[in-house]
Amino acid sequence: MLPFRDPSATLSGMIKILETSQKISDSSKNRTEAAYQKVLTRQDLGFHQMPDRLDLWTASQNLGRQLADSYDNMVVVGIGGSSLGPRALYEVLQNPKSKQKLYFCDNVDGVEFSRLWDQLSDLKKTIWVLISKSGSTIETLVSADFIHQIYQQKNQQASMVVVSETKSSPMMDWAKQQSVPTLEIPVDVGGRFSVFTAVGMLPMAFLGFPPEKFRQGALWARGQKSLISELSAHFLTSFDRGEWISFFWYYSSLFQNFGRWQQQLWAESLAKTLDREGKAAARVSTPMWAIGSSDQHSLLQQVMDGAKDKFVVFARFGEIESQSQKLLKTQFPFQDFFVGHSMGELISAQAQGTCKALIEQKVSTLTLHVQDLSPECLGAQMMLWQLVVATVGESLDINAFDQPGVELGKRLARAILKS
Amino acid sequence: MLPFRDPSATLSGMIKILETSQKISDSSKNRTEAAYQKVLTRQDLGFHQMPDRLDLWTASQNLGRQLADSYDNMVVVGIGGSSLGPRALYEVLQNPKSKQKLYFCDNVDGVEFSRLWDQLSDLKKTIWVLISKSGSTIETLVSADFIHQIYQQKNQQASMVVVSETKSSPMMDWAKQQSVPTLEIPVDVGGRFSVFTAVGMLPMAFLGFPPEKFRQGALWARGQKSLISELSAHFLTSFDRGEWISFFWYYSSLFQNFGRWQQQLWAESLAKTLDREGKAAARVSTPMWAIGSSDQHSLLQQVMDGAKDKFVVFARFGEIESQSQKLLKTQFPFQDFFVGHSMGELISAQAQGTCKALIEQKVSTLTLHVQDLSPECLGAQMMLWQLVVATVGESLDINAFDQPGVELGKRLARAILKS
Repeated sequence: MLPFRDPSATLSGMIKILETSQKISDSSKNRTEAAYQKVLTRQDLGFHQMPDRLDLWTASQNLGRQLADSYDNMVVVGIGGSSLGPRALYEVLQNPKSKQKLYFCDNVDGVEFSRLWDQLSDLKKTIWVLISKSGSTIETLVSADFIHQIYQQKNQQASMVVVSETKSSPMMDWAKQQSVPTLEIPVDVGGRFSVFTAVGMLPMAFLGFPPEKFRQGALWARGQKSLISELSAHFLTSFDRGEWISFFWYYSSLFQNFGRWQQQLWAESLAKTLDREGKAAARVSTPMWAIGSSDQHSLLQQVMDGAKDKFVVFARFGEIESQSQKLLKTQFPFQDFFVGHSMGELISAQAQGTCKALIEQKVSTLTLHVQDLSPECLGAQMMLWQLVVATVGESLDINAFDQPGVELGKRLARAILKS
Repeated sequence: MLPFRDPSATLSGMIKILETSQKISDSSKNRTEAAYQKVLTRQDLGFHQMPDRLDLWTASQNLGRQLADSYDNMVVVGIGGSSLGPRALYEVLQNPKSKQKLYFCDNVDGVEFSRLWDQLSDLKKTIWVLISKSGSTIETLVSADFIHQIYQQKNQQASMVVVSETKSSPMMDWAKQQSVPTLEIPVDVGGRFSVFTAVGMLPMAFLGFPPEKFRQGALWARGQKSLISELSAHFLTSFDRGEWISFFWYYSSLFQNFGRWQQQLWAESLAKTLDREGKAAARVSTPMWAIGSSDQHSLLQQVMDGAKDKFVVFARFGEIESQSQKLLKTQFPFQDFFVGHSMGELISAQAQGTCKALIEQKVSTLTLHVQDLSPECLGAQMMLWQLVVATVGESLDINAFDQPGVELGKRLARAILKS
């Protein structure tokens, strides 16, 4: 059992609002505060209860460390919510020098699939983690079948672990029959809300990042009633302004996969045809992400001079902006003024300059300050956004926890395959 | 000198329109056809003339092969148009088993920067390629300074190459003074239109992909008057329908960076405040990209059930859909029907099913068929999209070749640094 710790004082202020160019009304804040309370008291939602389910964290921790003793490569075989979370965490936390590596098989692209095999140095040192909440995701099961087939052609046996709901399913039934180790995704935790289950925590434990650290961050975020209500109210107000693109702009190169994780969370949870009463649901924004400074040389022109249909949320990272190495001299007289400065100061100035320029151009902005790139802070960011999305959904009286729109395409694909 | 070859018969049909759910009018097609002709005859635009400038292709080829004799790692130091093109090509073409590797330094994120050094196995085997069209991009020059500083701390000398306009600039002046080899970005080729200059072609030649192959594809695409006019007309018509998000959905995992390249091309070129006559410019869409099947488990819900403000352009790849390895038997009785099928058939069925489902939901769609993942086909896709973007811009009478919106942010950032 993990020792239960309350978030310590050092966690305070992990995420703060630095700036907002637009006001929210007291009434909208009251509305989201009430919605947030409702989310927290809903017993049918498991994601916000995850910090309290210590046995699950411990199970991920134990199996992850055990696997690290025997394997160097872990391949996450899963799609959507089963891979975006661990991908996001890995991009930020990976250490190029570490022996333990994480790989992903999250599509049925045969070219990418065969490239994956070229990267795995030693199949005997490779553990495959099949992840599917329902246990019946066709992309994942087909990939698993092909993995078995390739091993068989080599007269070897693939080592596997299954992460899924515990109820009977194609994947779970197979795992039991084959005595494959399993870890649980609780039935009340949806795929896109599952990063704090074994989905995210088993790979992190394998890499040597104790789940407890992410849990501390999640626990901290769950206590941020004011921050969550304020953020949620900002989004609702941006919809009132007709801003139909929510832009998440991360001032770090390491947040592309985080952007994709957040995009899924937002897109699947909030875009619904009907609300809970069966009436036409309120319109919500489409989520986009960008990377600063890189996208100042790409998407910025669109945000500056394109239609004013965007609400830009910047995230700046204390750890990156406080990078200490100073430039001692320059090869280019043109930038003499930069001598004595650090890369951190440059990225900081660029984030500030871009934000100011957008405000001058009457684009709505909000800037978050994130303390560092630690597991605690990542956990905090992920729980924060899960709670914001749930709160926005609750405020709009929609079911943020289903995805009815994706079923038709699946049915049609199956019909094509069977024809 | 490269032997000049005309695109051969095997290139015919590299990219085709398979399906469109919406019609375009003859008048809109005539309009884009005229605009396309105008683009092609504009002598001030260099990007479409690139296939004719054989000396530039040869220069990239020669230096690239020469560098491959001495180095294993090439680091592209550039931002925006100076890195997105080679990144896109590398993601599709990279071979995990190849000795030659490409790395990118395209931000001033100090944490990512230090991680880059951990990945470079041998600094003596590393060549740094500084890329900046203007020769004065601050992110690139600052990165170059820090690279020098780190080498100096190790009592070593960094091997560098410069890719830039030939006119005097901080980077070019330094290169001449230090006798650093240089390759040219023609003055009439903008950064985001520069993938067929040394920006994209030097790294590809280094990796062993002859520039001539990309040139063949580009040459083929330039001849596709009907395809380009039709695509351009579809976008103009989608704007008339009020679809303010253009969604580029690639059915391959290898096209994320291609999506980012295309996003920059679109976003910087088309979003303008004023048209050429100084009147308010027409509104254009914001570009987004997605990956199939993966994003069927992410963004699809938003496209299916969210506001009908999207035009979805699918790209399906013959090479991926015709993957031949069949599944011989399944571990999961649930999917017996899949035995005898390939991953290619699954991804194909998913692309078709998703497209049909969107059409049933009254979302506008268009499907492109792309023959394969060859350099020729990549070259064709990139020239095609450059010409479509230029043609849409010309049709709207805007200057698609500047980016006035990004200057203010840069000025403000510089002011913050100097203060």
